Amino acid sequence: MADYRELWQKLGMDLEKHDVLCEVLPQLYGGIYLNQENRPEGMNYYNFVVAEVHGLRIKELDDHKQQGGKVVGTFCVFVPDELILAAGAIGVGLCAGSQFWIEDGEKVLPRNICPLVKAFTGAKLSGTCPYFQSCDMIIGETTCDAKKKAWEILDDYVDTYVMDLPQMKREKDYKKWAEEIYDLKDKLEKLTGNVITEEKLHDAIKLCNRKRMALQRLYNARKALDLPISGKDALLISQIAFYDNPERFIEMTNALCDELEDRIKKGIAVNKKGSKRILISGTPMAVPNWKIHHIIETSGAMVVAEETCTGTRYFENLVDETPTTMDGMVKALADRYLKINCACFTPNKGREEDIIRLAKEYKADGVIYNSLQFCHTYNIEYANVEKALKEAGIPVLFIESDYSNDDVGQIQTRVEAFLEMIG
Amino acid sequence: MADYRELWQKLGMDLEKHDVLCEVLPQLYGGIYLNQENRPEGMNYYNFVVAEVHGLRIKELDDHKQQGGKVVGTFCVFVPDELILAAGAIGVGLCAGSQFWIEDGEKVLPRNICPLVKAFTGAKLSGTCPYFQSCDMIIGETTCDAKKKAWEILDDYVDTYVMDLPQMKREKDYKKWAEEIYDLKDKLEKLTGNVITEEKLHDAIKLCNRKRMALQRLYNARKALDLPISGKDALLISQIAFYDNPERFIEMTNALCDELEDRIKKGIAVNKKGSKRILISGTPMAVPNWKIHHIIETSGAMVVAEETCTGTRYFENLVDETPTTMDGMVKALADRYLKINCACFTPNKGREEDIIRLAKEYKADGVIYNSLQFCHTYNIEYANVEKALKEAGIPVLFIESDYSNDDVGQIQTRVEAFLEMIG
Ligand code: SF4
Ligand code: SF4
Ligand code: SF4
Ligand code: SF4
Repeated sequence: MADYRELWQKLGMDLEKHDVLCEVLPQLYGGIYLNQENRPEGMNYYNFVVAEVHGLRIKELDDHKQQGGKVVGTFCVFVPDELILAAGAIGVGLCAGSQFWIEDGEKVLPRNICPLVKAFTGAKLSGTCPYFQSCDMIIGETTCDAKKKAWEILDDYVDTYVMDLPQMKREKDYKKWAEEIYDLKDKLEKLTGNVITEEKLHDAIKLCNRKRMALQRLYNARKALDLPISGKDALLISQIAFYDNPERFIEMTNALCDELEDRIKKGIAVNKKGSKRILISGTPMAVPNWKIHHIIETSGAMVVAEETCTGTRYFENLVDETPTTMDGMVKALADRYLKINCACFTPNKGREEDIIRLAKEYKADGVIYNSLQFCHTYNIEYANVEKALKEAGIPVLFIESDYSNDDVGQIQTRVEAFLEMIG
Repeated sequence: MADYRELWQKLGMDLEKHDVLCEVLPQLYGGIYLNQENRPEGMNYYNFVVAEVHGLRIKELDDHKQQGGKVVGTFCVFVPDELILAAGAIGVGLCAGSQFWIEDGEKVLPRNICPLVKAFTGAKLSGTCPYFQSCDMIIGETTCDAKKKAWEILDDYVDTYVMDLPQMKREKDYKKWAEEIYDLKDKLEKLTGNVITEEKLHDAIKLCNRKRMALQRLYNARKALDLPISGKDALLISQIAFYDNPERFIEMTNALCDELEDRIKKGIAVNKKGSKRILISGTPMAVPNWKIHHIIETSGAMVVAEETCTGTRYFENLVDETPTTMDGMVKALADRYLKINCACFTPNKGREEDIIRLAKEYKADGVIYNSLQFCHTYNIEYANVEKALKEAGIPVLFIESDYSNDDVGQIQTRVEAFLEMIG
């Protein structure tokens, strides 16, 4: 690996602390990923991305900044990447998934809130995330209480812009969301000094749709009974989608999909015959949060899809490419994004339908509902999801967990019991 | 006390379980309230209201319903009472403050959410709150995650209407809130079959303003160094304001204020000379949550004001009575209500200013910041409030607590240490 210390220093990072992180990650990744059997060749690219996670891509961001470009951080799949790209900026998803940052987050945040929020706050405060350090601005949203209030704290450390997501999906809320998208357009134009033209936005819409289609293709391959790829690997790809160069990501993911489709034809599978198929549903899993997948896939079952923000919520539904006027495109963006069924909406019946539909499409034997600890919206929503799944005859297991390893044994036991129960 | 069992039965209550509650409350009230020394005579009315809390007022609601009137429950000071009154309905505040309901709430809600939300949900599920049972409809709001998602569960048990409160206070948010008020107007007209005329709404605005002025007068009396009334008693009056008959409440509260003002003139005080003056700031305290006040006032200090929803947030700022057109009045309502500084907004700098202003106005020696357990918004907001108070030289103690008595000893110790520190 090239030496990036100078670059990290320039980004104002805490090098000593960062060294600790750099030691932990490869070990973790090795243990969870590299000893999987029969992995597709195409996973080599993503291995490389992980190996270079704080290196090559950060260098690319730096090159972009050297040329006067801006880097913008986001934390939620409701923030439209299209606008960031159309403004000539690079967007990076900053949802942090490591226990490493919790301690620093808890210096300014209560302990009893979602680990994701504590982690991204800790990542910024500790200066150990080069992505965060590269950001000229971050874009928050009013999706949940923990994030909504964390922006006020982060704003002391980095320019923080907040979009007000409506909490319902009535006709007027679609208009309201379109207005927020327009406001973000203004903000990004000011930040970058670039005008978001109709042409640039239309190009960005097409680019993001191509990324979504590549992911859709990947997930489609997981519908095969002979699984050509593990759930862990698919999750990793979804996670990488949030910060990799979009064009390269599309190319490499489509290349992998060629291989996967070939595997399906040839019957090359990563799963054992008859292994149980699990649909994950719930909160996002940010790098390096592979905990639940690893438990499931070392218990003899396979994860076949994720009804999460690092899964179907990120790539389902394309933006309509027909409109070419600014108003038309902004409306198309608002329409596509508000189709996402996050528990932050009330009511959110659409999510129940999504889970049942996905369980069928992916031929899941059961659903594991995974909520980050203290995530009120997903936790509370479970009651109605459970009811709907019971009515549909789909078994479901509820797991609430944080980023620590303290509960791994207990979750393992519960997962094994669940797998036996649906056996 | 008259026998209300028939009435309770009619309301579909669980009489046996309710009997347990009826036994607990008078004991609790007696221990906390009735042995205070030198209470104002005027507190007899509120003693009576508490004694009749599940009796006389419920009978009044029933009489109203017998005549075709409707009863509407609310949970937040952002829901405009004026519209409910103008529709000829009776509004009751349902924020539940007892540990009694937690167990039933936890049957459908996660344990690690705010006790207030678990309690009101448990109150409905267990059929032990005659106010809740009297409601033809409840009005929720999207203020915090826990409430936002609890409405979906409550909707299975009672007609639940939800207002979408904007999460920011930009110009367009004022318009958005005015729209929500208009939508509520339609809903209430449909529910009651009554038209909300301009005249009726104007009358309701004046009535609610008079109630606010009575409470302002009560709180003004607490600015005296010789306190004419305890914090516990003032809190009780604020709590009763949420469900008592408004005209009667105004009359009795003004009568009490006559007595309090007379006491101030004569130097009749409930506090010992030199006792510390505490401003409470934070989440609402619903009946019978008198925990923190009781701890403070049995530790030798006095609570002089509450920057809470069962305090200043409920009655500060009158609605402008100048407009008489529907549009004008709805705008006046939106303007007044959006002045409330709840932690559910981002940013919420106004609240820091409120706390500092109130600490000065009430000559507080220190602030006790009280947050219900797992209330993300108030918990997270503490970091910035603490900073602002430090800058202003005002000592502050943070307490996070639920409705149980488990932490009373520990809180007492911390409060005593705080009082000594600011001594
Ligand atoms: S769970 Fe909801 S709030 Fe969180 S990233 Fe996903 S869409 Fe955004
Ligand atoms: S997992 Fe839940 S609490 Fe955490 S950031 Fe997402 S919506 Fe908020
Ligand atoms: S704390 Fe906020 S959400 Fe709760 S009752 Fe008060 S104003 Fe409403
Ligand atoms: S105290 Fe906090 S969590 Fe509880 S209902 Fe009020 S705003 Fe919501």
